[in-house]
Amino acid sequence: VSRVLLTGATGFVGRETLAALARDGHEVHTAARHRPDEASAGVHWHEADLLADRGSAARIMAASRPEVLLHLAWYAEHGRFWTAPENLDWVEASLRLLREFARTEAARRVVMAGTCAEYEWTRSVYVEQDPCVPRTLYGAAKHGLRVVAESFAAEHGLSFAWGRLFFVYGPGEVPGRFVPAIVRKLLAGEPAPMTAGAQIRDFLHVADAGAAFAALATGGVQGPVNVASGVGVSLRDVAALIAGQTGRAELLRAGAIPTPTDEPPSLVANVRRLRDEVGWRPRIALDEGLAATVDSWRGA
Amino acid sequence: VSRVLLTGATGFVGRETLAALARDGHEVHTAARHRPDEASAGVHWHEADLLADRGSAARIMAASRPEVLLHLAWYAEHGRFWTAPENLDWVEASLRLLREFARTEAARRVVMAGTCAEYEWTRSVYVEQDPCVPRTLYGAAKHGLRVVAESFAAEHGLSFAWGRLFFVYGPGEVPGRFVPAIVRKLLAGEPAPMTAGAQIRDFLHVADAGAAFAALATGGVQGPVNVASGVGVSLRDVAALIAGQTGRAELLRAGAIPTPTDEPPSLVANVRRLRDEVGWRPRIALDEGLAATVDSWRGA
Repeated sequence: VSRVLLTGATGFVGRETLAALARDGHEVHTAARHRPDEASAGVHWHEADLLADRGSAARIMAASRPEVLLHLAWYAEHGRFWTAPENLDWVEASLRLLREFARTEAARRVVMAGTCAEYEWTRSVYVEQDPCVPRTLYGAAKHGLRVVAESFAAEHGLSFAWGRLFFVYGPGEVPGRFVPAIVRKLLAGEPAPMTAGAQIRDFLHVADAGAAFAALATGGVQGPVNVASGVGVSLRDVAALIAGQTGRAELLRAGAIPTPTDEPPSLVANVRRLRDEVGWRPRIALDEGLAATVDSWRGA
Repeated sequence: VSRVLLTGATGFVGRETLAALARDGHEVHTAARHRPDEASAGVHWHEADLLADRGSAARIMAASRPEVLLHLAWYAEHGRFWTAPENLDWVEASLRLLREFARTEAARRVVMAGTCAEYEWTRSVYVEQDPCVPRTLYGAAKHGLRVVAESFAAEHGLSFAWGRLFFVYGPGEVPGRFVPAIVRKLLAGEPAPMTAGAQIRDFLHVADAGAAFAALATGGVQGPVNVASGVGVSLRDVAALIAGQTGRAELLRAGAIPTPTDEPPSLVANVRRLRDEVGWRPRIALDEGLAATVDSWRGA
């Protein structure tokens, strides 16, 4: 059992990470701007605005004395996060959090969330040691943070891992993103416009993503680790699976939206490290996960 | 003529950069904690503590309205800077400065100081596109900053260059470093201990380093640029040149200090970009530069 401080615990992946840690019996402390109404039993909530309140990191550390820092919080506003200046706020806040963590007596291990947007998008399947030449400010901010944080952790004798998320879907995803956008249109009986959908992506159910981060946080593997399914699927096929669940395939409008010219054709993870070194593998197949996602939107 | 805001203007390289910019007739504004007693004519000094006073960046921008930001300020305490947590303070302060700069109307170009410590130290001569896998926190902080800052600049339509310094020497260098340490011992008639000195390094006179940054700031070349001489010389040969100037070769104690096992054997720059794209080359040969350095310490 470890004492874990989790940031971003009210976010899409964070909620599932929190559930996984609590299920495994860890002592979980969370930093969040607002404690949610249905807070899990046994979870210690610390109200803090890590961006606006520069003193909050030190206060949370003093109150929670974590052995493990699991830092998922970041700016995630759909459509804006790729280019928003808030990415720089989070570089700053993340480094501040790490420094305060390094000062706490029990501090032992840090895990942070990275992204497939760190990689140079010139391949189709990505392994952790592939070159990182981010094309977006979001990817650059995450990559830059990783470089500094990993070195700082080494300097302070902390074990450090960096979980690179690819594409996460599932109940609770914000409405504008690909899966919920298709699901909602089809459930409403409306045409669902999309690109031709030839892009290959690596989708992981959010409950699996949370469980993977919990495994990473309480394990000992160091350095970058892809957090993904390792399975590539085209957006067209994802849409077809959703259509199969809703029975409205005729409403799919593949090709109605032009594919952006700078869209990478394939973003799929090599998951050897996650499977063989962390010892974790996903439990939820894509068709099951999409079925559950469709159900979560019925009547919503 | 450009309106340039220079940070670190009271530092080792910054003083020479300021002189070069002023000589070329640019309108120079500087941010420094204290205005030096002998301030150059025509230079606008803005007192500011970029680390401690978070509001200072915005105030300086409003007061100076720069077209070019030339950011050299960093933590440089000899012996400590490789591993000090202050490197993280400077990542933060540098990003804040960049953001405030991007908000100013005339903002056009950013130049920042990088380091040969960004490179993966597995080669002997380094070209700008070589892999960056820093071995030190200093190198990691600089590299991480570059990744984020370059992307942010692109997002905001700013031209961006990053000057990677190798080894800078000359009058005014802090006493503990290699060149002044040897010079002072020999001038004092005392034995000068050093490693066997087989390490090959790329030395650039500080006046040349300042002139190179001035050329970079007022030119248009983008991305990383090595700021160095392109000439590799062993520390033993540097020491021998100093001994030749002081006439006390018999006091050199090569081998008296064990060479650290993690010391890279060669750090030399490929300077094609600086020479052919920036159109700049050094003026001060190593023997002349060392002679001037020895003179600067006589009677000091």
